[in-house]
Amino acid sequence: MKPVAIIHTPFREKFGIPRQPGLVESATGRIELLPPFDRPGVFDGLEGFSHIWLIWRFHAVPEGDWKPRVRPPRLGGNRRVGVFASRSPFRPNPIGLSAVKLEHVGETWLDVSGVDLLDGTPILDIKPYIPYSDAIREATDGFAAGPPKPRLQVRMSRKAEEQLAARADGNQVRQLIIACIETDPRPAYRHGEDGDYGFRLFDFDLQWRVTGSQATVIELRGH
Amino acid sequence: MKPVAIIHTPFREKFGIPRQPGLVESATGRIELLPPFDRPGVFDGLEGFSHIWLIWRFHAVPEGDWKPRVRPPRLGGNRRVGVFASRSPFRPNPIGLSAVKLEHVGETWLDVSGVDLLDGTPILDIKPYIPYSDAIREATDGFAAGPPKPRLQVRMSRKAEEQLAARADGNQVRQLIIACIETDPRPAYRHGEDGDYGFRLFDFDLQWRVTGSQATVIELRGH
Repeated sequence: MKPVAIIHTPFREKFGIPRQPGLVESATGRIELLPPFDRPGVFDGLEGFSHIWLIWRFHAVPEGDWKPRVRPPRLGGNRRVGVFASRSPFRPNPIGLSAVKLEHVGETWLDVSGVDLLDGTPILDIKPYIPYSDAIREATDGFAAGPPKPRLQVRMSRKAEEQLAARADGNQVRQLIIACIETDPRPAYRHGEDGDYGFRLFDFDLQWRVTGSQATVIELRGH
Repeated sequence: MKPVAIIHTPFREKFGIPRQPGLVESATGRIELLPPFDRPGVFDGLEGFSHIWLIWRFHAVPEGDWKPRVRPPRLGGNRRVGVFASRSPFRPNPIGLSAVKLEHVGETWLDVSGVDLLDGTPILDIKPYIPYSDAIREATDGFAAGPPKPRLQVRMSRKAEEQLAARADGNQVRQLIIACIETDPRPAYRHGEDGDYGFRLFDFDLQWRVTGSQATVIELRGH
């Protein structure tokens, strides 16, 4: 299986990435076909669909590293579930699956939103999202039980506000920062611990501080 | 990428298989884990989900055989669309994607329904169907425009009725036969042509005849 495309996203490391696709609309990405798959016509008709499936490779995960049971972050990192009952990256075949919104169809590229993929992720397949077979209205959850709720209130420091104001994409970046932090990306064993955190986003290191249920974005370092 | 499991289904050839998953509830299958993935615990917690994703390999398709554009059966086999705008098996990487209903969780096997997979298909991954990220209520179709509608009225010959009555699974097989034929599995260029058709299902050859919009199941040959 060869990658047919690569995706460019704002997410430069795993920490901070939304835990499922579709949660964060401001998380946009561009999918670029790789040769020999960048042929005219391969996307013909795709513009009629609102969403697409991406089947991709967890490329930042060591190969062959899987255990029968994993600890999903949604369960606080304490309870174990079977690897096939989870969307964990540590699985027998490192295949990821994400439904994303199709924003624009180019000849050999696609713009999408609602991504939960690391920048540079190899895409193995692109398929149209077919509502009558893919959107199962009566489907019920196990432990996931709905999207993660906001747990931290996010505010910007004056410095961060100034840095955002200086960017052409400041509004989108602002929304994305809030969306990534408010559901609390910290590992479960850190919940309740005040401290400084950081992750790379776009071209900067996002520096933020937690005090109780308040998160403050200190600066967009390296901006 | 190694198969983690194999699926057993009633479908012994491509002709007659429902064109998408979820369409035919009587199409049941059993997924059996293959070593070294048949470890206790890999399905723990899966019983809380109503549906699962199967990511699988189109194993009955010649490898490397893809073209930028394909002719989906839903468009009558005339109009071409891009390969990434279709769920065609003739694609750069031979990966299939199906959401199926989870009927029963065993230690190293799963019973599912609504399958559209050929008997013996290798399964590359099994994931829980997460409604909040996978069931996109606002998603819109391109050309697929809803599930295929019944186009043939299916009746059983006396012989077929007798053969079904003699089977313990007669009712389910009867429903499956009707569901597979009524949406007209014939290639588009054969629509409107009367004639005899057959495909293998379970342990028999299903023999049927089309006269106008009427399909008659002649017999379950080899039963």
